[in-house]
Amino acid sequence: MNLDEKFAYMATGKPYADLDPKLVQARIRSTQMTQKLNRTADPEEKSMIFTQLVGSVGKTPVVEPNFRCEFGRNIHLGDSFYANYDCVMLDGAPITVGDNVLFGPKVGLYTSNHLFDPDERKAGGCVAKPITIGNRVWLAANVTVLPGVTIGDDVIVGAGSVVTQDVPSHVIAVGNPCHVLREITAADRTGFNGHDLSIQ
Amino acid sequence: MNLDEKFAYMATGKPYADLDPKLVQARIRSTQMTQKLNRTADPEEKSMIFTQLVGSVGKTPVVEPNFRCEFGRNIHLGDSFYANYDCVMLDGAPITVGDNVLFGPKVGLYTSNHLFDPDERKAGGCVAKPITIGNRVWLAANVTVLPGVTIGDDVIVGAGSVVTQDVPSHVIAVGNPCHVLREITAADRTGFNGHDLSIQ
Amino acid sequence: MNLDEKFAYMATGKPYADLDPKLVQARIRSTQMTQKLNRTADPEEKSMIFTQLVGSVGKTPVVEPNFRCEFGRNIHLGDSFYANYDCVMLDGAPITVGDNVLFGPKVGLYTSNHLFDPDERKAGGCVAKPITIGNRVWLAANVTVLPGVTIGDDVIVGAGSVVTQDVPSHVIAVGNPCHVLREITAADRTGFNGHDLSIQ
Repeated sequence: MNLDEKFAYMATGKPYADLDPKLVQARIRSTQMTQKLNRTADPEEKSMIFTQLVGSVGKTPVVEPNFRCEFGRNIHLGDSFYANYDCVMLDGAPITVGDNVLFGPKVGLYTSNHLFDPDERKAGGCVAKPITIGNRVWLAANVTVLPGVTIGDDVIVGAGSVVTQDVPSHVIAVGNPCHVLREITAADRTGFNGHDLSIQ
Repeated sequence: MNLDEKFAYMATGKPYADLDPKLVQARIRSTQMTQKLNRTADPEEKSMIFTQLVGSVGKTPVVEPNFRCEFGRNIHLGDSFYANYDCVMLDGAPITVGDNVLFGPKVGLYTSNHLFDPDERKAGGCVAKPITIGNRVWLAANVTVLPGVTIGDDVIVGAGSVVTQDVPSHVIAVGNPCHVLREITAADRTGFNGHDLSIQ
Repeated sequence: MNLDEKFAYMATGKPYADLDPKLVQARIRSTQMTQKLNRTADPEEKSMIFTQLVGSVGKTPVVEPNFRCEFGRNIHLGDSFYANYDCVMLDGAPITVGDNVLFGPKVGLYTSNHLFDPDERKAGGCVAKPITIGNRVWLAANVTVLPGVTIGDDVIVGAGSVVTQDVPSHVIAVGNPCHVLREITAADRTGFNGHDLSIQ
């Protein structure tokens, strides 16, 4: 199998060998690129490295240091993506993120699990499931998203939450494990006028 | 508005535009300074950069890498402040910390929230509320403190807690969301004699 | 007391002075070595620095950046240790890890506590208790392990858990505070054949 075929195989959700030499090589590439990314403060250089690192990305992403990922190539981001400090994405399976999504500091998205059986885990077995996040989602600080989770549109996930199950659209969800707290309603509007993008 | 006026406006707790060009510029300054701070191991150089970065700081602060903050200028720290590895502070509103305060690794203090309405959030709206921490407080590893929280004197917050509400003085508080576990009493004394600052 | 005697004293579980000059010096050594470790992407150089940093380590450890520790010398790791991004170990007391142990991103192991009494804490008092982890254990992302905890063999600790008490062998444990969710059984086997370490 070449690397594309390997990732296609992993995307089926079947167990795979974590220490496959081609995967190990792909991880070293990612570590080297993120070390370069996190060392520079120049917006243009950051943007260039980040665009090469990930599978696809929309307009004007901003990613604060230290951004980390497993491969990069399975990460697909919409327009205006923002990740605050110390974001980690393990993208053995695809991570798909909509437009206008904001991550607070220390957010982690993990598609890859080691196998549960100790002998199979010792033998290097992993399994990956995709993570999908809608539009206008905000994951607050230190949120962890587990393999296979889908989060709808407009969702806010509260700080420190561990998202183990799908979250429907238009809600605030919190906790470990994360559960829906309430819907977002018209009462959440503040009257903010952002058209000129300056403080009122 | 100049930058001082903008921060005074934000301190009122009214929504503001996150992507205001002057704020973006102030964040780049902070990122550049913390990258410099986190690259050096020389105590004197660290102390000089840190003093320039924050609004005010007492005697003998020690801050392990990687320290991150949003602006720096809204951070006001007492004497003998210690932050272990990977501390993050988002200081859109003032963060005020007393004397002899200790942070374990991976502590996050976040005064800034994005707006809850998805259209207002997409338009770049944020709101910030101050965080205030008393004297002789210890926030253990991986504690998250949310906007508007006041923590009293002598408090211990247990590892992994998410502090969503005020915490009174002289207690141990734990959990997500964080709640008071018990008071600190005379029974917590060990008889430690620290006067000579050496192992007994 | 020389440094060896100091660590032997600390290992008794009696309070000690955190700011003892020899301990401060030992921490600076550790910070400098981990900064060097985290800056390189060369596997051989990483391996050499890491072997010098820790007390003992088995065959083929892999440690992703940024790895942090308090001293290093109290860390004892078995064969095939793997720590993903941003692992932190505070090793005032011994941290002993078995063979084939895997840490997800952002895992923290903390043997050291500040004293609970505010005056004793202000005077620099700490107390450390060992952490012991068995063979074939997997700590998932953002797991925190507290002083004095022993984790058995084959254990999986779920993402975001805060481990405050011992965990027996052959179980999955989750939550804050962490509790046993269920045993690992033959039903957890997938049939993965890892002998050739390549994707099937």
